[in-house]
Amino acid sequence: MLKELLKPEILELIELRQWTDLREVLTSWEPPEIADLMLDVEQADRVLLFRSLPRDISAEVFAYLESDKQDDLLHELTNQETREILSQLPPDDRTALLEELPAEATQKLLTLLSPEDLKEARLLLGYPEQSIGRLTTPHFVSVRADWTIKQALAHIRTYDKNNETINRIYVTDNDGRLLDDITLRAFIFSDPKESIRSLMDENVISVSAFDDQEVAVRTMEKYDIPALPVVDSNGVLIGIVTFDDVMDISEEEATEDFQKFGGMEALDKPYNTISFLGMVKKRAGWLVILFIGEMFTATALSYFEGALEKAIILSMFLPLIMSSGGNSGSQAATLMVRAISLGEVTLKDWWWVMRREFLSGLFLGLILGAIGFVRIVAWSAMTHAYGDHYLPIAFTVSFSLVGVVLWGSLSGSMLPFLLKKLNFDPAASSAPFVATLVDVTGIIIYFSFAVWLLKGTLL
Amino acid sequence: MLKELLKPEILELIELRQWTDLREVLTSWEPPEIADLMLDVEQADRVLLFRSLPRDISAEVFAYLESDKQDDLLHELTNQETREILSQLPPDDRTALLEELPAEATQKLLTLLSPEDLKEARLLLGYPEQSIGRLTTPHFVSVRADWTIKQALAHIRTYDKNNETINRIYVTDNDGRLLDDITLRAFIFSDPKESIRSLMDENVISVSAFDDQEVAVRTMEKYDIPALPVVDSNGVLIGIVTFDDVMDISEEEATEDFQKFGGMEALDKPYNTISFLGMVKKRAGWLVILFIGEMFTATALSYFEGALEKAIILSMFLPLIMSSGGNSGSQAATLMVRAISLGEVTLKDWWWVMRREFLSGLFLGLILGAIGFVRIVAWSAMTHAYGDHYLPIAFTVSFSLVGVVLWGSLSGSMLPFLLKKLNFDPAASSAPFVATLVDVTGIIIYFSFAVWLLKGTLL
Repeated sequence: MLKELLKPEILELIELRQWTDLREVLTSWEPPEIADLMLDVEQADRVLLFRSLPRDISAEVFAYLESDKQDDLLHELTNQETREILSQLPPDDRTALLEELPAEATQKLLTLLSPEDLKEARLLLGYPEQSIGRLTTPHFVSVRADWTIKQALAHIRTYDKNNETINRIYVTDNDGRLLDDITLRAFIFSDPKESIRSLMDENVISVSAFDDQEVAVRTMEKYDIPALPVVDSNGVLIGIVTFDDVMDISEEEATEDFQKFGGMEALDKPYNTISFLGMVKKRAGWLVILFIGEMFTATALSYFEGALEKAIILSMFLPLIMSSGGNSGSQAATLMVRAISLGEVTLKDWWWVMRREFLSGLFLGLILGAIGFVRIVAWSAMTHAYGDHYLPIAFTVSFSLVGVVLWGSLSGSMLPFLLKKLNFDPAASSAPFVATLVDVTGIIIYFSFAVWLLKGTLL
Repeated sequence: MLKELLKPEILELIELRQWTDLREVLTSWEPPEIADLMLDVEQADRVLLFRSLPRDISAEVFAYLESDKQDDLLHELTNQETREILSQLPPDDRTALLEELPAEATQKLLTLLSPEDLKEARLLLGYPEQSIGRLTTPHFVSVRADWTIKQALAHIRTYDKNNETINRIYVTDNDGRLLDDITLRAFIFSDPKESIRSLMDENVISVSAFDDQEVAVRTMEKYDIPALPVVDSNGVLIGIVTFDDVMDISEEEATEDFQKFGGMEALDKPYNTISFLGMVKKRAGWLVILFIGEMFTATALSYFEGALEKAIILSMFLPLIMSSGGNSGSQAATLMVRAISLGEVTLKDWWWVMRREFLSGLFLGLILGAIGFVRIVAWSAMTHAYGDHYLPIAFTVSFSLVGVVLWGSLSGSMLPFLLKKLNFDPAASSAPFVATLVDVTGIIIYFSFAVWLLKGTLL
């Protein structure tokens, strides 16, 4: 890209402190590109570069920065500069900023807001975390049903200063309750003398400010609307939530689920910007919990120490059997965590899923059991590695594989439902968690088959 | 929801074959809701319900159905009905339909298209799978720079029949090359006598039809534009790709990564609609590969059979050590797979990541090693479970934990880079895959420490 090529020149302009030239070059850049550029610049130069931006662009660039970079910048700026940026920031980005800064910094910023913005910020911060209210931008213009289209257009022209309005105009009653939405296109291509009412179909999709942000993702995906009107508990229109924020939420939730499923807490920050200690902390917790859970394998094995001493051969297949259970559990859990998160299955489907996973587990277990059987018998024929009693050993391993894979599929698929039912995040039923759960049981299954099938021969 | 409550009544209307009443009720429904309703209806009634829909709605409802349901419906409809639906279907949905149907059905459908639609379909199907071209809707209206706004509006009014146009008008030169985009708002609120050129800033974000769909996701997220113009290799505007398709792609890719990471092939269909055998097939392949890989643990263990016979106590801690390596590997892999997929880290970052993961692994290993040491020593003090030589055993376990967690973090983080470098999907470095990889090494690490530290006492 041309802009990539220009970067060295830009960095030189910064070096030479040529702010006027720089400003001229940057006016043709999009704010996200300037935000990228700011990351490539030394901290000290960053604030200078930021100050050199035209006033109307700097707030937009600010909105595209990561919250820690925003925090850094705010420390460098004067109160007057901060005040200006804050007042220019779209309200949803302002909410996000206030939400993520340390409480102290948030308090300071609130004092810099205009009374009107302060009221707005307090309102939006008043909605629960992770609620749609926090994503809402309250800058919207609404029209009344009894206006003519011409009146409405004049109203919009005067009052709608919002860049985020996409393509719908909202109709409300005198109390501000949402009645309908009309596309901007319908406005343009209708007779200006017609009333708004003539364009209304009394059919509007909206979301509640108190709903979880996940609801906005699902609603937008279902209806393919780029901006959803947000209403409070009385049906009063308080703002809109736009596709860009919803896409970010959808991606963040996928990342969270993904990381939790990998057996750790969600980082909440990109890997390349999170601090080393921050990252280790998110990993250590679960690693220790899993470690302690896995200690029960030692306890379980000590019960079978006698069997192990007599038939050391049993320990050879122990990892194979345990890991097969863990793998099938991981598969089942990954399917359920994602399907629950996408709303493809809900709690009430658990029984259907359980029957289905019982069959899958049985089927998959039989496949692995058969391979294991053939492998042991073939190996014995060639090398005599497993002694005279290779046949009961082969049966023990095969039966255990069936049992363990079946058990893995069942527990991997049911654990997410259980967690959901207990109001935990289903994604916490991670691959390592399921594996740990299945490991202890796997040992018991394996040695139970061994005691039964090898009694009188090896045991 | 009211509509949920209405469902029984609707089903009754279908039962009673009251198509006229039904049609009346359904006109106030949104197409996605009617599509949902169709899923609740018996196959035989489904086609009747579909036929009862007003013509202009039925194609939209059709577009919202899953591809297998679309296929079922097409089997029931007459050629004339099919032709009508196809001609009303938005071109990007039509491409998706033709892409997913069996080849034979696709051929049949192509013969039902109008010559114009056929040309369009052939063009879009000509772009590579997973390319932006396949998502493109070619219904757009472009204007010329030297027109007045009034001329342009008249042109749009006449030619733009497309519901998918969101809020931007594209300016092209006489060869159709994309020059600029202008918001619909700018149009409305400018003097109609002004020229289009006066609104242009010569700054337009576009994507290539040949780019991977992932590029559309990243571009849309970066620039927050709800519809991206798509150009061919000559810069000619061929259509637009809209936020709703891009959101779907983003979600599908996350699902694919998620399922691959769980140790299976991506289902490519929702869990609740995929057939049982289809699902088992997607799982069996990886399960067998992992099983065969895990067989090397038996081989590795057989090398240490002598040591195991002398010190059966070693087998007690084997699962604990192996799983800790797998867990730390799963954590590192989950972080890398997602960070690579989101573009947070790229191939060239591998060395930075490796140093970082070396430190994390060492740190996390020391934590687990310390816990393991304390556990063994404390247990020995209380129960004498591990005999007189509990101290060298404790050291063996601790050192092995450090080694194995370090190795797990390194291989878990590097495997996604390696796969990416070899042009495989990084998400294939699944939790079970990494665990299997680490298991064999874990055995070698553990017994190496054992041989070294227990020589002269237990071994």
